[in-house]
Amino acid sequence: MSANANFENEIAEHASHGAKEDIAVSARPGVILSEPRNTRVTPSVVTQLDRWIARQMLEVVGNPPIVLILWDGVAVTPPVTNPIATIRYYNRSAMIKTILNPELYFGDLYSTGQATVEGDLVRFSEIIYSNLEDGGRGGWFKRAIIWLGHRRIANSHDKAKDNIYHHYDIGNDFYRLWLDTEVMQYTCAYFSDPDMTLEQAQVAKLHHVCRKLQLKPGDSVVEAGCGWGGLALFMAKHYGVNVKAYNISKEQVAHAHSVAEKEGLADKVQYVLDDYRNIKGQFDAFVSVGMLEHVGKADFPTLGKVLDRCLKPEGRGLIHTIGRNRPAPMNAWIERRIFPGAYPPSLREMMKIFEPNKLSILDTENLRLHYSRTLQHWLHRYEQNTDKVRALMDEEFVRAWRLYLAGSIAAFNVGELQLFQVVFSRSRNNQLPWSRAHLYREQVTQSEP
Amino acid sequence: MSANANFENEIAEHASHGAKEDIAVSARPGVILSEPRNTRVTPSVVTQLDRWIARQMLEVVGNPPIVLILWDGVAVTPPVTNPIATIRYYNRSAMIKTILNPELYFGDLYSTGQATVEGDLVRFSEIIYSNLEDGGRGGWFKRAIIWLGHRRIANSHDKAKDNIYHHYDIGNDFYRLWLDTEVMQYTCAYFSDPDMTLEQAQVAKLHHVCRKLQLKPGDSVVEAGCGWGGLALFMAKHYGVNVKAYNISKEQVAHAHSVAEKEGLADKVQYVLDDYRNIKGQFDAFVSVGMLEHVGKADFPTLGKVLDRCLKPEGRGLIHTIGRNRPAPMNAWIERRIFPGAYPPSLREMMKIFEPNKLSILDTENLRLHYSRTLQHWLHRYEQNTDKVRALMDEEFVRAWRLYLAGSIAAFNVGELQLFQVVFSRSRNNQLPWSRAHLYREQVTQSEP
Repeated sequence: MSANANFENEIAEHASHGAKEDIAVSARPGVILSEPRNTRVTPSVVTQLDRWIARQMLEVVGNPPIVLILWDGVAVTPPVTNPIATIRYYNRSAMIKTILNPELYFGDLYSTGQATVEGDLVRFSEIIYSNLEDGGRGGWFKRAIIWLGHRRIANSHDKAKDNIYHHYDIGNDFYRLWLDTEVMQYTCAYFSDPDMTLEQAQVAKLHHVCRKLQLKPGDSVVEAGCGWGGLALFMAKHYGVNVKAYNISKEQVAHAHSVAEKEGLADKVQYVLDDYRNIKGQFDAFVSVGMLEHVGKADFPTLGKVLDRCLKPEGRGLIHTIGRNRPAPMNAWIERRIFPGAYPPSLREMMKIFEPNKLSILDTENLRLHYSRTLQHWLHRYEQNTDKVRALMDEEFVRAWRLYLAGSIAAFNVGELQLFQVVFSRSRNNQLPWSRAHLYREQVTQSEP
Repeated sequence: MSANANFENEIAEHASHGAKEDIAVSARPGVILSEPRNTRVTPSVVTQLDRWIARQMLEVVGNPPIVLILWDGVAVTPPVTNPIATIRYYNRSAMIKTILNPELYFGDLYSTGQATVEGDLVRFSEIIYSNLEDGGRGGWFKRAIIWLGHRRIANSHDKAKDNIYHHYDIGNDFYRLWLDTEVMQYTCAYFSDPDMTLEQAQVAKLHHVCRKLQLKPGDSVVEAGCGWGGLALFMAKHYGVNVKAYNISKEQVAHAHSVAEKEGLADKVQYVLDDYRNIKGQFDAFVSVGMLEHVGKADFPTLGKVLDRCLKPEGRGLIHTIGRNRPAPMNAWIERRIFPGAYPPSLREMMKIFEPNKLSILDTENLRLHYSRTLQHWLHRYEQNTDKVRALMDEEFVRAWRLYLAGSIAAFNVGELQLFQVVFSRSRNNQLPWSRAHLYREQVTQSEP
């Protein structure tokens, strides 16, 4: 048997050992069990092969400036100076799982504390993203990741409900700990000035959206996926429009309705606990902020038909969504644990909404770095409130969401993800502004109606 | 034989008669012969069948408010009041050709005077466009038009040269009669205020493009398809950049170079008589205004590779092009007689330039109505100069270009054509402005370098 065959056998043995320790999947999909699963594992001794594998891991992603410390406390260092982060594995299984499917398992390993990262988690994620994409030997590695890790979750009506429940019904109290306090937006803010506070930038985002839609008092607006109702309320309050806002999250709709009542706007804003596919009526404007990611590209033609059905002849529409420069599946771990069913489309893919329905794209703006900035604010607030998150959930949840927020900052910073705002109308609507200058005039908050 | 079969036989006979009178195709493709071809035709008597066919023609396009007058001077009127235009046919052949392929033949019939239009030619074209798209029975009719009339002309290197020669080398004198006198732009202007003069709007367009590209003194810019060199000169003069501008039209390059010499800017602007595919070097900005229509979608991946090759890591790019809301072949007559090889792409089709090359769309603006306004200015000036056009060319040419300009206004007005300005960069370029407000600040013309 050659030395090479020996290696291969030992790797197979390691992998099989790793598989035995595989993380048990929770009965409630996407919920990460709180018991640290590595408590049962007695770390085995570190062999020469373990060290060889660790070096291969670094090499295959282009030798990033990252140090690996194995479970005996000894470091495997890359051939660079000034490493920016240190990953520590507490058992062999963790390392092997990272090889088998880093995109999926690393998140779980990090969440359960079987792997830790010392250093800047954002910078670490950026380097992994960049090196996976650039690395000479990253090609097959990345393809393998995607092939192994990615499972599509089709969004049937019922399934969609499950997926959103999972994410948005974790509890409003949780999101209140780190979202803005003004309009409670869980979508990209608009930092027209990068030094804005998060609250200012979220309000600026809402104005930006309303201005792009050219809202005027008395207009009827339909919103698909209204979150906690912040935008719907804002439109009614500051632009004097009547809003019908759809959402399939019970908790969010209940919250939104109670706020509307409290603010005396329940006659202007109607929250509907229903799927966007069931939108009825015709409107002066259609708006959807942060919903398309959950629609799934198979349903883009359906969404297009909804738009065609609900827009008046001179109606305006806006879709605000995370997207991509070119099609790629969602990060496997985020899709499984954080956002089941999520899919950020490329602009080309989005055209399947518009093209078949004679809809005309008027304006597309990419706010990629605004989402990175938004997420930086969120992560900062989150870190200040981890004690409260821990009390509401548990340590594993705390770690999972830290990685999700940090990883997302990285994804926007390196251009893996984009944020598109797409404005559209019917193709024969000639009631169009001659320029976009009206979006950039001094913002004057209109008095309440 | 049934009455119906009789009709069919007679229609076939008419059609074959029509075919015998078919317009001879000029040896120089796209050039319309000056001799009115209908002088040889002795109009036959108008039969009941002719009248029946005329009524069918109106019905099949949804009975637009258009009157047909046949060659005996008798009108066939639609069942509407207030018709907006009258088409007059001077022989049966003309009417039959319109049925066989209205998109292609009507242009030739109008140019040669075998058909005339009384009334508003723009409004007439709008109605035809709208009714062909909407008309219940227009479906098969339109498909038949496209099938019958459309011939693709692949743009091989040499062919591309021929096509552009044909259009742009008609003679600078011709274009000078009706384009703006300031920067000689044969592309969509930017009417940030709709009451601007054509000259103001063309200058505003150039500023708009330069601002979108964030040009700063010392930047290197490559331009693909530079027309008469107006933009290249403008960028050098007002933004202090160094430009390398490519064009395959000899006349245009000669004109451009002589202007640059005259203005003392020949050291800042280099005009290159070559194809965009041969662009060499790396630049801070790539710009192309009104070239993509001539590239042909088969070459979009090639253009993408050129962009990927020539953009510096933090380079910005802008493509300004006529486009569509969804893919469709170019109007057959315009493609054959006016713009051989032209193809206005949909945004989805354009993504084949960007997606494979990790390019990121930052901003898309649709200036559809600006092109309608631009064309209205052009048509107005053109009509004031038809005597001079006739002296340079001939009556048939005068009529053909009138129909082209009027029909194009209509196409933009009814949303058949769009005008996209697409700004892009490499996906990891984080040197991006935080907002587009800089596009809308008071325009200050910078002093010459």
